[in-house]
Formats: sequence, C-alpha cells, structure tokens
Amino acid sequence: MKTISVLKIGGNVLDNETALRAFLTDFAAIEGPKILVHGGGKIATRIGAQMGLESHYVNGRRITDDATRDLVTMVYGGLVNKQLVAQLQQLGCNALGLTGADGNLLPARKRPVREVDFGWVGDPVEDAVNAPLLLSLLAQGVVPVVAPLTHDEQANMLNTNADTIASALAVALAQTKSVRLMYCFEKAGILLDINDENSVVSLIDRSKWAELLAAGVLADGILPKLENAFSAIEKGVQAVWIGHANDVINIDKENTLKGTLIID
Amino acid sequence: MKTISVLKIGGNVLDNETALRAFLTDFAAIEGPKILVHGGGKIATRIGAQMGLESHYVNGRRITDDATRDLVTMVYGGLVNKQLVAQLQQLGCNALGLTGADGNLLPARKRPVREVDFGWVGDPVEDAVNAPLLLSLLAQGVVPVVAPLTHDEQANMLNTNADTIASALAVALAQTKSVRLMYCFEKAGILLDINDENSVVSLIDRSKWAELLAAGVLADGILPKLENAFSAIEKGVQAVWIGHANDVINIDKENTLKGTLIID
Repeated sequence: MKTISVLKIGGNVLDNETALRAFLTDFAAIEGPKILVHGGGKIATRIGAQMGLESHYVNGRRITDDATRDLVTMVYGGLVNKQLVAQLQQLGCNALGLTGADGNLLPARKRPVREVDFGWVGDPVEDAVNAPLLLSLLAQGVVPVVAPLTHDEQANMLNTNADTIASALAVALAQTKSVRLMYCFEKAGILLDINDENSVVSLIDRSKWAELLAAGVLADGILPKLENAFSAIEKGVQAVWIGHANDVINIDKENTLKGTLIID
Repeated sequence: MKTISVLKIGGNVLDNETALRAFLTDFAAIEGPKILVHGGGKIATRIGAQMGLESHYVNGRRITDDATRDLVTMVYGGLVNKQLVAQLQQLGCNALGLTGADGNLLPARKRPVREVDFGWVGDPVEDAVNAPLLLSLLAQGVVPVVAPLTHDEQANMLNTNADTIASALAVALAQTKSVRLMYCFEKAGILLDINDENSVVSLIDRSKWAELLAAGVLADGILPKLENAFSAIEKGVQAVWIGHANDVINIDKENTLKGTLIID
C-alpha cells in the first residue's frame, strides 16, 4: 500500500462553503489511500442557539453537558459528516463517514473530573484504534471521513478533539504502514513571525526544532502543535505537514511544496 | 457465510427507551451476520419543534424541504444512528453506522415532482446497492446499522423510507447469499382480525396468500407490507418475517416462533 495520508480540517475550512468546496476538490485529487478527520466548526453553536441550548464555559473551554453531547453527536456525526461524505461522493471520492464508536474505531475514556468537570469529553484509549478496519476500508478504495466523536464502550458518545483523533489514527496505522499526517489550519505554516505569512519555515527536523526553541522565536500557540507532531513522528509517523488548506494540492509536488514539513 | 439477517425497526421501538434496550439486547444475541435498518421516530419532530422549524404536510405526508433535510440528516444519521451504535457496542456487538451516502451504499434519485413536490425524498436506484462493501464488513464481524437516508450522487442527502432501504439491501445481498428480511412493527404479526393480537397467521406462502386475499380478511394497511414481502422473495430473499420487536429473540427457535413468516 502507498503512503497513507491522514488529513485534518477544522472550522476555518468547514465554516466557509467556498473554501470547503475548494479543499474537498483538492482532497479528492490526492493520490493513494487517505483519511479525512474533521472538526466541528461553528454550526453546532448556531444550531444549539436555535434549539435554545445555553453553552457553559469554564476557563474559556466549553463544557459538554448531556444536551451538548446530543448536539455534537447529531451535528458533527450527522450533519457535518454526511455533508462532507455526500460532497466527496459527488467528486468521485468513495467517502464513508465514521465516529470513534463505529466499528469500535476509537474507544475513549471520559476525562476524569479534577478541578473542572468537562462533561462528556473523551480521551482516546492508548493503542486501541481499530486499525484493521481502516486498512480493510482503504484497501477497498474507501476514504474514511472521521467526526470528532468517540465512545466510552458504556453506550456513551464522547466529544473528542479532532487533532487528537487524527494523530491517534495516524500513529496506529504507522505501526504497519507508511503514514503522513497533515494538519490544515488558518496559517500558511509554522511562521517565524506570526504577523508575516511569508515567514513560513519549510522544513523542521529535530535539530531545526531545537534551534527554533533556543531562539525563542515561535508563537506560544504553535508549540503544542509542534510537540504533537514530533510525538507522532516518534511513534512511527513518517512526516507531519502543517499548513493552509489551500496548499494541500501541492503536497505531492516537491518543487512547489508550501506549508511546513516536519520530519525526524 | 451463514444466512444474513436484515432487520428493520421503526418508531414504536426507537421512541421507547426500555423497549429499545430490550430489542437491542435481543438483536445482539441473534447469531450470524446481521444488519439493522432503523427509521426515524418522533425525535426529529421534537428537535425540529425545538429549533422552531415548521413541518409541512401534503395529504398527510411530510414534505422534506431544505431545513427538514438537514434536520433528518443530523437526527437520523447522527443522533439516532450513533446512539444505536454506542448501545450495541456496549452489548458486545461491533456495530458501524452508515447512510446510503457512506461508501455509496445506496444511491437514489430525488422523487420526480408530479402532483406533489415531496422535496428531498429519494427512491433507491435499482440494482445499485454496494453489496461488496456490506459483505466485506459482515465478513469482519461488523454489524452495519443503516439510517433512513440516501444520496443523489450530486452532493445531496435524501430522506428515504426505512422499509424500502431494508428491502433493497436484502435483495442485493440475496443475489449471492442466503438472506432473511425481518420487519419489526407494532403488531404481533399479520392478524386475521386486526383487533385480536392472538389471530396471528404464523406462516404465509403463495397459496395461503391467495387464500387470504380471496377471503378478504386482511386489513388494508397490511396489504402493501405483504406485497413488498413477496416482491423481495421473488427477487431472491429466502424468507420475510413480520412481527413484534419483542419476538425477534425467538426467530431461531422453531417451536416458539412468534410473528408471521412469509416464504415462497
């Protein structure tokens, strides 16, 4: 099997119909086996408001109470997921939507209550991805489209971060296959100057990473992304790409590659 | 592969938490490869009302306008489907949720506008079921759980009758496998006297069917169900069972079989 591409898109793509259409067209054109992991975007908030649900936040983080869990299950697992699948099908890409509950793809544990009770939020169980299911689908030319939801194996759906899901799936597949992990976000890549989209660092390996850390030039917000990237690489993922959704199309064109490529 | 069981449940099971739990426990215990097709139930109406959506009806049939399509996509494809999957997973049944869009399982055509424009309602394309996908999942011990939604291959989700989906899947699988189709409804089976739950006809074959029709004893509402059952049998389905969800558990016990079994 060729290198498996695991792509993650978030709200900045999902919330803009034109940007989403352009991204899905590019995604459909990526060669080889691939998986799309999507976040939620603003639509759950909009539908929640329409339903008269109140959002509860602690330290700026949304609490997933019973009503919010049902809301994200239907919006992320139903509306967003199936709209992506239907659009990809139209583009000739044989998409199939999944959550972490489907086929027990990704069992998780409800986050323990410490200072804050985040509610129905799940952290994936380590080494528990159903990789054989994904590999069987990929071998049939099917393209899994994964919603940011897991389950606790006790009949409860759980709200789970899409970056975390993408990383867990990529690491699990990397145990037997060559895998690259691609995060699309709102910037052109890892920037030396957060206010300058032309300051993208094209390639970061471990020595470059140490150099950047020592220089203290990176924005705080990007440090966890890079830490997660190197963690995935340590666990077997071949490369991690971080960049803008518009630049996904160039991923296989060495001379015009945009964004930031992270390697060992 | 052993005989594949394709079961359909509707609102009478879905809308009652206790009945649903009992049914899922029985369903999980059915031996051999199996598929669950579910209807919608009243929850879409409840959530639609909460969102302030108005339902539109023509001749007692709900019109699927844009807002209703999004509503059923999220409620049937997200909330109902994932709650069923999560519950079955807890029961040790490796459920995986699908709509007709996922893996192009069941492409459909938007119903043409004649006297009435039903909106985003789909009728399955004949002989277009992705049976190899289902067979591959079944061979892995996965139990597909199918929502009453299809797509038109033009990026639009469509609202589709769950009975129709169950029949289309059963017929497609019957081209290469032994298949039985099981409809759970609110009665104990086909009744000679609609007011007497003890008047179940246990076995109907073609000659019995002709006899019942000639006698004119069956309720009008049940005639289309029987016509559909014989149509499925004509297209290769081995047997059709119609009965109460409570009696699914006895399907493999010849001496205590309840409900109505329909054979060639």
